[in-house]
Amino acid sequence: MKLIAEANQKAVQHLMEAKPMLIGIGIAREVIPGMQENLLLHAGPPITWERMSGPMRGAVIGALILEGKADTPEAAEKLVTSGKIQFDSCHHHQAVGPMAGIISSSMPVYIIKNETYGNLAFSNINEGYGKVLRYGAYAPEVIARLQWMSQTLAPVLKKAIEISGGIDLRNLLAQALQMGDEGHNRNKAGTSLFIRTIAPYLLATKADHAVLEAIFKALHGNDLVILNPVMAACKSAADSAHGIPYSTMVTAMARNGTDFGIRVSGLGNRWFTAPSTVPKGLYFAGFSEKDANPDIGDSTITETAGIGAFAMAAAPAIVGFISGTAQMAKQATLEMYEITLGEHPYYKIPNIEFRGTPVGIDITKVVELGIVPRVNTGIAHKQPGIGQIGAGLVTPPIQCFADALEAFSETLPKE
Amino acid sequence: MKLIAEANQKAVQHLMEAKPMLIGIGIAREVIPGMQENLLLHAGPPITWERMSGPMRGAVIGALILEGKADTPEAAEKLVTSGKIQFDSCHHHQAVGPMAGIISSSMPVYIIKNETYGNLAFSNINEGYGKVLRYGAYAPEVIARLQWMSQTLAPVLKKAIEISGGIDLRNLLAQALQMGDEGHNRNKAGTSLFIRTIAPYLLATKADHAVLEAIFKALHGNDLVILNPVMAACKSAADSAHGIPYSTMVTAMARNGTDFGIRVSGLGNRWFTAPSTVPKGLYFAGFSEKDANPDIGDSTITETAGIGAFAMAAAPAIVGFISGTAQMAKQATLEMYEITLGEHPYYKIPNIEFRGTPVGIDITKVVELGIVPRVNTGIAHKQPGIGQIGAGLVTPPIQCFADALEAFSETLPKE
Repeated sequence: MKLIAEANQKAVQHLMEAKPMLIGIGIAREVIPGMQENLLLHAGPPITWERMSGPMRGAVIGALILEGKADTPEAAEKLVTSGKIQFDSCHHHQAVGPMAGIISSSMPVYIIKNETYGNLAFSNINEGYGKVLRYGAYAPEVIARLQWMSQTLAPVLKKAIEISGGIDLRNLLAQALQMGDEGHNRNKAGTSLFIRTIAPYLLATKADHAVLEAIFKALHGNDLVILNPVMAACKSAADSAHGIPYSTMVTAMARNGTDFGIRVSGLGNRWFTAPSTVPKGLYFAGFSEKDANPDIGDSTITETAGIGAFAMAAAPAIVGFISGTAQMAKQATLEMYEITLGEHPYYKIPNIEFRGTPVGIDITKVVELGIVPRVNTGIAHKQPGIGQIGAGLVTPPIQCFADALEAFSETLPKE
Repeated sequence: MKLIAEANQKAVQHLMEAKPMLIGIGIAREVIPGMQENLLLHAGPPITWERMSGPMRGAVIGALILEGKADTPEAAEKLVTSGKIQFDSCHHHQAVGPMAGIISSSMPVYIIKNETYGNLAFSNINEGYGKVLRYGAYAPEVIARLQWMSQTLAPVLKKAIEISGGIDLRNLLAQALQMGDEGHNRNKAGTSLFIRTIAPYLLATKADHAVLEAIFKALHGNDLVILNPVMAACKSAADSAHGIPYSTMVTAMARNGTDFGIRVSGLGNRWFTAPSTVPKGLYFAGFSEKDANPDIGDSTITETAGIGAFAMAAAPAIVGFISGTAQMAKQATLEMYEITLGEHPYYKIPNIEFRGTPVGIDITKVVELGIVPRVNTGIAHKQPGIGQIGAGLVTPPIQCFADALEAFSETLPKE
């Protein structure tokens, strides 16, 4: 067992000592390893078109229209069923995406470098609220916004990030957790800090006043701006903790809208999956649980890296949005110490006297105690093209963790 | 006693229902009522040059150099002792200023309009950290920064605020209190929200890229940017609650560095003063309590209006700066409910299950319970020209409240 303890100690150290820097923006096909023109990356463990849920299918359709490969949803579906489009998990390409998480070859993506260990991670740019691709919408205004992001926002933002010399996301997140964010569902402080940090560099690009005005409006209008870079930051930390033999620490939790899947540091690239469940939470007016898609998205990389629901005590203001009380928020964090390997040296929570967030989920503890990781999430409509209908909490299936633990026991050296 | 209860109910309603909007920036002599060329406004209750503390004298010297009325500190002192310069309390001119609070005739000032009751309030623009006029520094770089603020920052910011149609400070503060600010010593969230809100309008001014870049750098470099507009917002609320016969509610607490003074809604414009005490807190390296000036500044208008130390439970991250624990921060807010008349309908604290901040200090309760209002503060060096040396908590002298209560009892109708 000393073997496992040492492996886990190393894994959680990697997770905690990662230093993710936002160093630039690139075009997916030019910067993401293994990206190809006919490849679409998606959230969660691998899945085929046949098993994809409504919102993920909607996002696939939208991405193919955006790429100019189809003019209509019907044409897009036909193209997919013809077999000319490949799918793969974002996670297999050092990438993550919220909700459907579709990344297509021409999309601009954030580039995050984990300065401690040298590895890169990628995520797409957040579109904001309402009808958006990540929730499966593909209406003309959705495509038009994505085009504006590619053609106008991304080139200027890329230049600004480059002039800045890189934005320290670990530092930004540490501050945001002292300002009411938990880094998954609530990103108002992180987004605010990002805007004030990047603002002088945006001016230094010398882009037209009208362009910069539109960019500042778009950034101010979307409290989730920083979610995607933060997810990639967490991915860069998790990847640097992956592949440590005999470690039982989780290095990915992700959902494709059909399956919930995890990967474990000492178990290679195998996914352990179980059916994704419908989140419990608050629904927007006119919607209810019967409209909800099962849990979807790579954003659970935040909980994997010790923030999100694990940092709920830092974000009491969130409870109105996902239902609950400030006291419950504190309890959520306290419970997660039971199943984790460390306390984060950089992400500290004022409300619990600056204790570090619980970090590094141990599948052994999850199974032994029967406590599954807590997860915050947005809720997508189960039909494509509609969008977000609520937000809440989801309970990951314990079966993933039990299956992983069983597989792990088979890897142990015979005594 | 029904007379008093009704008066206090009306006073606290005015304090709570005020809606302060930042509507512009003007030159002090053009917009502040009663402002004159040879008049200097200062923090706290009225005081003569002879009784002024070191930092206030330093700020007077700096202001006279800024106004071109003196070339040297010696010349400035000579001008003052010649009797050619008048002094008056900011509070007598609908204005407030942090620390020394010196406002001279050419200084740009924020204009806040209380939309509910129509009254205006004013505050100067925050200079940032280090050697600054408000802490009594008057070195050439201090004057140069004030000149840049007058000539470059203020005209562009004024235009941006005007294009915006006004910034709703009540809404901004309500958000900031959910993001770890208490609005007095901690203003990181409020400043961040202000920057992201004003950014598109700054671009809309079409000012040069280099000018805007410098402005964004200055704003990002100073977490206290929003303190002065917030102080004026609180002043506009307090003024609209002042002058209600038979009300025992405090409408101003202010310190000039020598005296601590309060005004009470039902007691006209009379100040009740007692000697200002030295704050307890954390000192910057190399300084201690023996270097500290007694408590100084108009920023206690925040506590008067129900934020600052009264909202400590919202800002657990502050405790590292002023010494203490998150639990103590919560207790500080809970204690203030004992001496206040209302719970703020707009300023709510997630950590105590969204209870409104305690608002409207009742001198009767203060004296009866022996609980004085809690106050957060910065600490100035007692010599002019040095600046901030720490931050902490101050205990207002209960004598002010006892004297006010005695004066109040004389105003009651004979039965």
